[in-house]
Amino acid sequence: MLIRLGYDIQFDIPAPVAMVALLNVHPSRTACLLEPDQLQITPPVPVNVYHDTFGNLCSRFVAPPGRLRLCNSTLFSDSGLPDAVSPTARELPVEELPPETLLFLLASRYCEVDRFLDIAGGLFGNSAPGWPRVQAICDWVHSNVTFGYHFASPTKTAMDVYSDRTGVCRDFQHLAITFCRCMNIPARYATGYLGDIGVPVVLPMDFSAWFEVYLEDRWWSFDARNNMPRIGRILMATGRDAADVAMTTSFGTTFLSSFHVVAEEEAVASPC
Amino acid sequence: MLIRLGYDIQFDIPAPVAMVALLNVHPSRTACLLEPDQLQITPPVPVNVYHDTFGNLCSRFVAPPGRLRLCNSTLFSDSGLPDAVSPTARELPVEELPPETLLFLLASRYCEVDRFLDIAGGLFGNSAPGWPRVQAICDWVHSNVTFGYHFASPTKTAMDVYSDRTGVCRDFQHLAITFCRCMNIPARYATGYLGDIGVPVVLPMDFSAWFEVYLEDRWWSFDARNNMPRIGRILMATGRDAADVAMTTSFGTTFLSSFHVVAEEEAVASPC
Amino acid sequence: MLIRLGYDIQFDIPAPVAMVALLNVHPSRTACLLEPDQLQITPPVPVNVYHDTFGNLCSRFVAPPGRLRLCNSTLFSDSGLPDAVSPTARELPVEELPPETLLFLLASRYCEVDRFLDIAGGLFGNSAPGWPRVQAICDWVHSNVTFGYHFASPTKTAMDVYSDRTGVCRDFQHLAITFCRCMNIPARYATGYLGDIGVPVVLPMDFSAWFEVYLEDRWWSFDARNNMPRIGRILMATGRDAADVAMTTSFGTTFLSSFHVVAEEEAVASPC
Amino acid sequence: MLIRLGYDIQFDIPAPVAMVALLNVHPSRTACLLEPDQLQITPPVPVNVYHDTFGNLCSRFVAPPGRLRLCNSTLFSDSGLPDAVSPTARELPVEELPPETLLFLLASRYCEVDRFLDIAGGLFGNSAPGWPRVQAICDWVHSNVTFGYHFASPTKTAMDVYSDRTGVCRDFQHLAITFCRCMNIPARYATGYLGDIGVPVVLPMDFSAWFEVYLEDRWWSFDARNNMPRIGRILMATGRDAADVAMTTSFGTTFLSSFHVVAEEEAVASPC
Repeated sequence: MLIRLGYDIQFDIPAPVAMVALLNVHPSRTACLLEPDQLQITPPVPVNVYHDTFGNLCSRFVAPPGRLRLCNSTLFSDSGLPDAVSPTARELPVEELPPETLLFLLASRYCEVDRFLDIAGGLFGNSAPGWPRVQAICDWVHSNVTFGYHFASPTKTAMDVYSDRTGVCRDFQHLAITFCRCMNIPARYATGYLGDIGVPVVLPMDFSAWFEVYLEDRWWSFDARNNMPRIGRILMATGRDAADVAMTTSFGTTFLSSFHVVAEEEAVASPC
Repeated sequence: MLIRLGYDIQFDIPAPVAMVALLNVHPSRTACLLEPDQLQITPPVPVNVYHDTFGNLCSRFVAPPGRLRLCNSTLFSDSGLPDAVSPTARELPVEELPPETLLFLLASRYCEVDRFLDIAGGLFGNSAPGWPRVQAICDWVHSNVTFGYHFASPTKTAMDVYSDRTGVCRDFQHLAITFCRCMNIPARYATGYLGDIGVPVVLPMDFSAWFEVYLEDRWWSFDARNNMPRIGRILMATGRDAADVAMTTSFGTTFLSSFHVVAEEEAVASPC
Repeated sequence: MLIRLGYDIQFDIPAPVAMVALLNVHPSRTACLLEPDQLQITPPVPVNVYHDTFGNLCSRFVAPPGRLRLCNSTLFSDSGLPDAVSPTARELPVEELPPETLLFLLASRYCEVDRFLDIAGGLFGNSAPGWPRVQAICDWVHSNVTFGYHFASPTKTAMDVYSDRTGVCRDFQHLAITFCRCMNIPARYATGYLGDIGVPVVLPMDFSAWFEVYLEDRWWSFDARNNMPRIGRILMATGRDAADVAMTTSFGTTFLSSFHVVAEEEAVASPC
Repeated sequence: MLIRLGYDIQFDIPAPVAMVALLNVHPSRTACLLEPDQLQITPPVPVNVYHDTFGNLCSRFVAPPGRLRLCNSTLFSDSGLPDAVSPTARELPVEELPPETLLFLLASRYCEVDRFLDIAGGLFGNSAPGWPRVQAICDWVHSNVTFGYHFASPTKTAMDVYSDRTGVCRDFQHLAITFCRCMNIPARYATGYLGDIGVPVVLPMDFSAWFEVYLEDRWWSFDARNNMPRIGRILMATGRDAADVAMTTSFGTTFLSSFHVVAEEEAVASPC
């Protein structure tokens, strides 16, 4: 399946400001790109490209005053298969986890693991370990939290979500991630494209957030917001939580003036 | 100057539990060790040693039920010089910072950078950039926060410290780190040994926390708790905040039963 | 000046639910009413009317399932004068305050006085006491907090407002109230009608929140959101903060389906 | 049963400061006093005595610089009966509650009812209404929260207690009060003397906190900390939470230097 990916994001910049963008397809998926995946910046500015400690591809530049436009269009060859489901995937004891996964058991800005240990134990301590436990967590979050764009707040933490029971997609994932970590299951935040392939269209296209957990021998995608296997989830970045993988981070004042994202099937499919 | 380092930490373990210890001198300082720096575990258990993503040396093991003892004694050859002071060290604009320092501008568990931008700007926006700004931050924290062991709480964040104006050494550093990051100065949390060499003894020996900022071309040590250059600061670990570099992290229930730390000058000095 | 007052508020009620409405003009202002000020409930239900401990007129009833409509229209004879301004109004020392004002020095749900003592002291400790200090507080809040309906949250506290610097009118008042109390000036939350008489119209009509402080020998109205004397501020209720004086409180599930408020000048004026 | 009551509380006062003390037996219990219940202040200062809006007896005065001593000794004739238990006491629907109890359904400083509605519903929605529900709440808090003086913090809220699961007696009550209010059961905070009559002595004598709920036709005492009927609970003050009924409130800087409370049985009993 071919998926056309792209975005057009515009800012008003009052004074020169350094920015970092995480707007590329994740390095682990670049083999499926059929066209270049190149961040276009208008006006053109020098860009410093680097990988952060999580392995994401980052672009750093100084935005000049005035209108700034970040855009791109590329073509991705997707398997067309929904998210993998493996109910027998085993939960590893902490001592068997690969060392690089241990970071994803710790507390982070929006995932206050240290404040949720008893709460999570009370809710999920009796669920079957492994995949069923992660699924129980997603089911709980999905059915207890109400989605709404007006519930969005940049400072909203898992504790806020647990208490107020409202949020946008990142909030659902933060709460689920926190529960997983409390149960000693490594969980990390993921962002990327997620088109409406195979599902009724209900919302304007946006980037999406989901999360990954480490079971058996690999990371698996889960999504407490949608809570169903989806087709066409294309990873851009992973991190401890949304603080690590903002699509754009501005080290000074910027005003978002427009925002469009594209992720839709194109006519001719060619499995990657 | 020779400094004798060591610790004796004991836990009561009700059931087998995975633990991670960050109890070694930091890899960057191992050249100064005159004796092996080996974590002794009693009863003996298999240990998995690895470096985390921050470069710290970590020991992972499963503690069996009963009394667990972690201890060590080693000898460190220190320069005997106080913390470096360089008032002309330049603050780099974000676009010139080494990529690996950018992580230390972001929000983390105990450092809610996203909630402090206006507060920090109001307090330190008019201070001279670079070293004087970091010093102004340390001065503010040092003179506005009251130290006391009974103010310690494992969930205390920079916002709690800013509001309640009380804390232990980690709290002082969390608030100062947060302020630095808001001002676009990379700041990371540091833990290690800090004996009472050259200062009046006021408190029982403990591990200590301080922080490092990136100015000019390197990381520099600052300490908002003590707020004076100190001799014999021996690094064990750095991370985004205390969540990353707990001396021991238990993935289940443990009870700390005794705790002793040693960091004192030995007779014969031999500069490293 | 004659001011037409009224509202039409509708709810969808899934199951019978007890509600309390504070939708009358405040008892201290009823002498200026030229028409009955009677809450109309559709469908009609028995209403228990009482005064709460703050002296507000409250209506309690059980809403039946289905559509619930609360409406009213009345006519108020206003002085047509803007809020009183008295820069020489003296700040009373705590020992001279009337006992009934002391409650309004204490912390309440959305006004964490206990967490703001040092912050308020740092910001306003050097301002001249009395009226100028309250005005300095309003000026600070007015110029440091950004208004926006999408910043509204039912759980937002003064600390959230101070940190995030965003909010709706109630949030501005909560922060200003908290600062006043920290400076030992009694401050209470006020709600009521505030039309756009004498000001450019910028927003749809709503109930409004402001606050009152006790100086010299009486309560005075201040408004950190608008921060200018206004005509036609007609009090409905006062309390410690928004938790005490919600226009409607539902003790179970209700869904607000429409909301209209009127407060506009009528042709023939007759000073009260 | 005769109970000797008293206290000796001393402060160091750096500069004149207004204080309010709630250190008398509650007006509802004064008929049982066999000796005067008179706050003694050293050095002597003029005292303004008044009742606050909750009906508590308050003493306001200006403390001069130097050592301040507040003390008292009185004799109370107690029934000698443990707290009343009435498992059939009915939970009133909100529409039948006396108006003056409705305030105790609302959120307050340390009881964030607005943030606990879903949490409380999840934990107690299936418990039998009335007395069994309040008992279920006490049982939950009693068995899930760990007591320790070093867990005390003046800014700790019910949410903090729920998350961290630690606290002193006021924290236990704040969490239980919040749960009750979420279930539409009026609950208020109570402070007073509680000796160790009939129980093993484990802690130094202190004032105690408990809470009261309104069931059937009156207020009943519950105590989520001790969670058992006790003899000799002598009320001093009630309010929405600890913010309303601090034993002493200082409107400026004071340092507590010593603190002793007495509440013990005297030889000759004479039922009140």
